[in-house]
Amino acid sequence: MSTPKIVILGAGYGGMMTATRLQKQMGANEAEVTLVNKHNYHYQTTWLHEPAAGTLHHDRTRIAIEDVIDKNKVKFVQDTVVEIKKDEQKVILKNGELTYDYLVIGLGFEPETFGIKGLKENAFSIRSVNSVRKIREHIEYQFASYNNDKEKQEERLTFIVGGAGFSGIEFIGELADRVPELCHEFDIDREKVRVINVEAAPTILPGFDQELVDYAKTLLESKGIEFKLGTMIKECKEDGVVLSKDDQLEEIKANTVVWTGGVRGNSILEKSGFEAMRGRIKVEKDLRAPGFDNVFVVGDCALIINEEIDRPYPPTAQIAIQQSYTCSHNLLALIRGGHLESFNYSSKGTVASLGKGEAIGKVGNKHLYGGTASAMKKIIDNRYLFLLGGPSLVLKKGKLKLF
Amino acid sequence: MSTPKIVILGAGYGGMMTATRLQKQMGANEAEVTLVNKHNYHYQTTWLHEPAAGTLHHDRTRIAIEDVIDKNKVKFVQDTVVEIKKDEQKVILKNGELTYDYLVIGLGFEPETFGIKGLKENAFSIRSVNSVRKIREHIEYQFASYNNDKEKQEERLTFIVGGAGFSGIEFIGELADRVPELCHEFDIDREKVRVINVEAAPTILPGFDQELVDYAKTLLESKGIEFKLGTMIKECKEDGVVLSKDDQLEEIKANTVVWTGGVRGNSILEKSGFEAMRGRIKVEKDLRAPGFDNVFVVGDCALIINEEIDRPYPPTAQIAIQQSYTCSHNLLALIRGGHLESFNYSSKGTVASLGKGEAIGKVGNKHLYGGTASAMKKIIDNRYLFLLGGPSLVLKKGKLKLF
Repeated sequence: MSTPKIVILGAGYGGMMTATRLQKQMGANEAEVTLVNKHNYHYQTTWLHEPAAGTLHHDRTRIAIEDVIDKNKVKFVQDTVVEIKKDEQKVILKNGELTYDYLVIGLGFEPETFGIKGLKENAFSIRSVNSVRKIREHIEYQFASYNNDKEKQEERLTFIVGGAGFSGIEFIGELADRVPELCHEFDIDREKVRVINVEAAPTILPGFDQELVDYAKTLLESKGIEFKLGTMIKECKEDGVVLSKDDQLEEIKANTVVWTGGVRGNSILEKSGFEAMRGRIKVEKDLRAPGFDNVFVVGDCALIINEEIDRPYPPTAQIAIQQSYTCSHNLLALIRGGHLESFNYSSKGTVASLGKGEAIGKVGNKHLYGGTASAMKKIIDNRYLFLLGGPSLVLKKGKLKLF
Repeated sequence: MSTPKIVILGAGYGGMMTATRLQKQMGANEAEVTLVNKHNYHYQTTWLHEPAAGTLHHDRTRIAIEDVIDKNKVKFVQDTVVEIKKDEQKVILKNGELTYDYLVIGLGFEPETFGIKGLKENAFSIRSVNSVRKIREHIEYQFASYNNDKEKQEERLTFIVGGAGFSGIEFIGELADRVPELCHEFDIDREKVRVINVEAAPTILPGFDQELVDYAKTLLESKGIEFKLGTMIKECKEDGVVLSKDDQLEEIKANTVVWTGGVRGNSILEKSGFEAMRGRIKVEKDLRAPGFDNVFVVGDCALIINEEIDRPYPPTAQIAIQQSYTCSHNLLALIRGGHLESFNYSSKGTVASLGKGEAIGKVGNKHLYGGTASAMKKIIDNRYLFLLGGPSLVLKKGKLKLF
């Protein structure tokens, strides 16, 4: 009998943790595990708003895959997934192909632009190390150029962030800290800079309690952020946005638009013929794709309904990590012949950062604010590093104040 | 009898040093000295190739004017000169005007593009703190963008430097050091990056001895620089350059073109009706403008013939600083009633840096190379700071290895 082949697509939270869980729990030669990823590093998607604003170096958010995997147990292939030939149990890569007995799909998210005109072409999105260092450099370039223009262009100093969800607000929090630094660096009055958050819903941070929302909004406003709530982006142009509120249109010139207003699963799933809603497969309780007993889906490509409110759980790092536990358990159960377990999400609480030393959060029914929430956020970030790579990884990449 | 008014236009090497010389030598209330400058800082033009490449922070190259002037003796006005009404002894500023009894013009250089098509519109030039930090950010943005493009654009990683004179080669030297850092920062193979120096003359560093030129060229080539000598830039487009060599045309796609191939004096001189050649006034031996007994010209706006070779001295910091001595002496002579002295340039030697720890130079008839030349360059830089602001300025802004 030949060794079963497990192929894991994507080294995000779900795929990476599935790989490290397997390497811990598998016996020698129990399975041949291959992890496929476009880059030779894993990155912390939930930290990306920081290097996007320029408040943290992007290298702090990424981890070399070979620093975390045990090469005796997991083989790493650096390549880009083109298509999954699910009926042939084969994955087509840009530079080759792989066959599998078991597949784990952890291909992550793409921005969802809801068909808003020009958004795909003209807005940045916070999605990868590559994309965020481009945002950082783009922002710096606007500041660096401003004093060189004969006719001063206010659009260079106008920054639109679309979406007031988790990522939008966390990015806004970092920008609020970064703007004064950039003004100092490039000899520009803070007063000339506008940072505008546009959100279609009537409130920021939907899902958070009103008290927390009010705290966040007041804090960010005190740092000079403008909010345009109940406002839709109708169009994103090369040089700005057209907004709509109560049927009134407003055009704002801006060289920088960052869209955080929506995510979807990876479009490779639809291309590969899976039944998916916005790139997400509505998985079975054991995290397998319906009709495919050997295909698991984790992370942002997995759609799971929260039965309490009959709506999908939002895609987060927390849920992806929990899924990796179920997924690795169930893979071993299939190989060894055992009982497959059902996935049950258990929320450990949520904290949204609002810049340096500031955050809001909810753990159980307890509200957290300011320094306490910010400390909790760092604990969450460090805990993940501990789960992934043990204490040495926390020391290397953790958010620590050692001195 | 009223106190004579001296107005100094520009806080470059010539203007700034004239102001500080005057404040040292003048008695109380002997003259009312006003220094006019666009920015509230003086900068080291000869260092600008470093922040342009990103190897030194731009703040290291600038000095707050109020840190150097004695407010009891010199009044500083931050404003932009629009025109000199020489017949009315008046200077028109953007936000006001000043009358003078004596004028010192030290308005510096502008790039000279010799009518080459598109150069003015599409090429960067190394001329001010504002311009160089834009160059630095532009270069970084190219690197940051490269891995985000679906179709890789080689023009993002192609850098053309026009001109192989002093500034061009010093900039190339810094770029050669910076490129590997940027490749590391943005995950790009060094092999993909081209840095091309284009020069119409058959050699780099015209004016230097062949031995020194050979050393410089071999060193820079070993760091991956390409030279295209005896080659003209026919046109600079938004996306590259058209070159011509021996009547053969070659087009090279490049998003970054930096022109260092020529300088001229400030065009305000011609606008103000002075007789000028490429913005430079051919001054009398005592540095006064012909026909204007109360107008001195120093620095890049002054044209002085080197009678040994019957050609103008090239505009350098060294000559500007020496001119400030003659200029301040002659101003005091006019006020006090004394003998005006003639300007005599005395070359103290020249050193061109070639990146970190490398340089070539000639002091007297002695050739300097490598570490020795590089150390000499730092001594020259520090000596200027000493002349300008004494030991405290050397400590604050000098190129020192303190540890």
